[in-house]
Amino acid sequence: MTLQDQITEIGRKARAASRELAKLSADAKNAALRGIADALVERAPAIIEANASDLERAEKNGLSKAMLDRLRLSKERITAMAEGIRSVAELDDPVGKTIDRWTRPNGLQINKVRTPIGVIGIIYESRPNVTSDAAVLCLKTGNAVILRGGSEAINSNLAIAEAMQAGGSAHGLPADAVQLIPTTDRDAVRLMAEMDRYIDLIVPRGGHQLIETVVSHARMPVIKHYHGVCHVYVDQDADLDMATEITINGKVQRPGVCNAVETLLVHRAVAQLFLEKAGAELIAKGVEIRGDEATRAILNGKSQPATEEDWTAEYLDLIISVKVVDDLAEAIEHIEKYGSHHSDAIVTADTAAAEQFLNEVDSATVYWNASTRFTDGGEFGFGAEIGISTDKLHARGPMGLDELTTYKYVIRGDGQIRK
Amino acid sequence: MTLQDQITEIGRKARAASRELAKLSADAKNAALRGIADALVERAPAIIEANASDLERAEKNGLSKAMLDRLRLSKERITAMAEGIRSVAELDDPVGKTIDRWTRPNGLQINKVRTPIGVIGIIYESRPNVTSDAAVLCLKTGNAVILRGGSEAINSNLAIAEAMQAGGSAHGLPADAVQLIPTTDRDAVRLMAEMDRYIDLIVPRGGHQLIETVVSHARMPVIKHYHGVCHVYVDQDADLDMATEITINGKVQRPGVCNAVETLLVHRAVAQLFLEKAGAELIAKGVEIRGDEATRAILNGKSQPATEEDWTAEYLDLIISVKVVDDLAEAIEHIEKYGSHHSDAIVTADTAAAEQFLNEVDSATVYWNASTRFTDGGEFGFGAEIGISTDKLHARGPMGLDELTTYKYVIRGDGQIRK
Repeated sequence: MTLQDQITEIGRKARAASRELAKLSADAKNAALRGIADALVERAPAIIEANASDLERAEKNGLSKAMLDRLRLSKERITAMAEGIRSVAELDDPVGKTIDRWTRPNGLQINKVRTPIGVIGIIYESRPNVTSDAAVLCLKTGNAVILRGGSEAINSNLAIAEAMQAGGSAHGLPADAVQLIPTTDRDAVRLMAEMDRYIDLIVPRGGHQLIETVVSHARMPVIKHYHGVCHVYVDQDADLDMATEITINGKVQRPGVCNAVETLLVHRAVAQLFLEKAGAELIAKGVEIRGDEATRAILNGKSQPATEEDWTAEYLDLIISVKVVDDLAEAIEHIEKYGSHHSDAIVTADTAAAEQFLNEVDSATVYWNASTRFTDGGEFGFGAEIGISTDKLHARGPMGLDELTTYKYVIRGDGQIRK
Repeated sequence: MTLQDQITEIGRKARAASRELAKLSADAKNAALRGIADALVERAPAIIEANASDLERAEKNGLSKAMLDRLRLSKERITAMAEGIRSVAELDDPVGKTIDRWTRPNGLQINKVRTPIGVIGIIYESRPNVTSDAAVLCLKTGNAVILRGGSEAINSNLAIAEAMQAGGSAHGLPADAVQLIPTTDRDAVRLMAEMDRYIDLIVPRGGHQLIETVVSHARMPVIKHYHGVCHVYVDQDADLDMATEITINGKVQRPGVCNAVETLLVHRAVAQLFLEKAGAELIAKGVEIRGDEATRAILNGKSQPATEEDWTAEYLDLIISVKVVDDLAEAIEHIEKYGSHHSDAIVTADTAAAEQFLNEVDSATVYWNASTRFTDGGEFGFGAEIGISTDKLHARGPMGLDELTTYKYVIRGDGQIRK
């Protein structure tokens, strides 16, 4: 069987499974999710064994310590995965919910109802726990899922997928509701992206190269979970203590994530006062500052010079770029020009300035007097998150269960025909 | 300037205009729409002159009478276009509306607010009135629009676009809010589809070839307005008079549109009675019937044989394919296998059968005891329609103004940081 035939066959099976899945009640799906959680725990020894072979190979291939740690599964991590699944089972099922309803003058009753999307392809790298995290959110919402993980984790992913299939089908889930692409052949990504007949949505979770491959080949909608070049703008009317806290929190609390702050913009009127204070705190926390000329003048040798590249950089590290701006308009202009439309915050006591910022900054999430670190499904109260979309359609910002559904119009009449 | 540079420049200008547009109030946008309507009427003589040169060329190229009629603009048609624009100005503006709002335990106020999508590319064929119809819906929702019309209508489209630009900018609309690709070079479609930096959404409205070109090159979301292979299923518990009316209405009232019925499915228990009656009426209305064996046996020489191709055919003509099925499950199976997931109806007095049909048929619009011809923005009460999406994301079924928006999360706090 060629790779193409193999992928097509997986797609065909996923489509068939998706039709069965769409008929399952919330209770049936939740029972299957609990079955999956149990199966992961039961099969933990086999999963850890498969993971050990991945780790061994990875070590030989010289993967960094941080990467090895991301790859490693333990009994505790598998238990945590199972706990995560059980908590998803507890969430409300959006499928079947009425989003809107109205009656037309001719008596037609129109109901706009949430339905599963169908078949979702998830392409991800590295961490094997994504295999179950992402899959269960798709299953919860009645979607079949085709998973394609990173080659480093292939054995771990296969073992997890097998456990999920066993646990799910023992509780009435179609056997092909979760499938993992069993090969590390890179062509599989392209073949998945081209298969619009069987995949309704593809979600690439990984680096630039992966996303580029998917986007350039995809014939179906893609929802990208791309980088975050997030800004804090400290306005002239900012409470400078609050601004310092929000800046420090955005940069330092967890620098390696997409909602961390990468660029600080400061109004010229408060730059001296604010940067002396916040700059010292940032430096004390081990943050490297890359500033424009005005910033460097204020920080007096404690800032590196920022280059043009710094304004678009997602450091994911203890580095921050800093620019002094003349006014709100320049701050907005900077964010629109260099930002990634992920999460941006203004700190100010001036309502008019805040509202202008909230309106004109075209980002998935815009904040007034709060940390950008809140862009997160859990922090939004979604209960679960498949990621944070940097696209505008069909989901923007944190993607929860609702964003894994589409809708259809269900129309009930009593013989209406069109005149 | 190369074509690539030309398209890129149009994109760059559209992006800049979209940022200005997003700031305009509903009143300002509506005033501009009325200005556009006035300009179309004022410039009607110039538009008709440009149209005459398109018609002359089209006639030389041997376009069919029907196509020439679609291409032709008259004072009355231009007045109707202007009236259409004025009625869009009267509609509610969805931009800025709160879709959802909640407060988190930490006090963060989260508002999910409708925003413009940004820049929308519309690629269409033939009828020049689409130039203004589609453009004003985009403008109303604060989106900049790049139009690419069919080559037959290039002069008409340019004249309409010029009138729109003049009328709009006289009332405060950014000059580049509406732009028309001024060349008929086919490469322009590909270049637009590749330009994800400047175009956020592309909507191809046209034949299979156009849609295929867009889908295969697009790097941004595409919303397809594709064909409708719509079904009526007459259940064993159908009111046969109602079923006949719904079938005749679906096939005959306007056969050339995507929500017309192409295939009739009939439960075996009522096939004899129903097909004798409905068959005779269809034939009396000039409809050609292409039936399976059971249908042909009942219609006794008055039906052509249906081939496998007939089940997927969108005739857009007075032809209908007819199949007798054993039960509801076979009807659903047929629709899922051969249909285009556009609009499908069941006629029955059996609530359980109806609900099963409504649940299991995965189409944008599913009907119980009503004609599929109601799948239409106007009939839904949307007031305006950019088309009927056959995609699942981000819009499904009739697309009105709401579907030309996205959303962002606007979050107001008082200094919250993440713990």
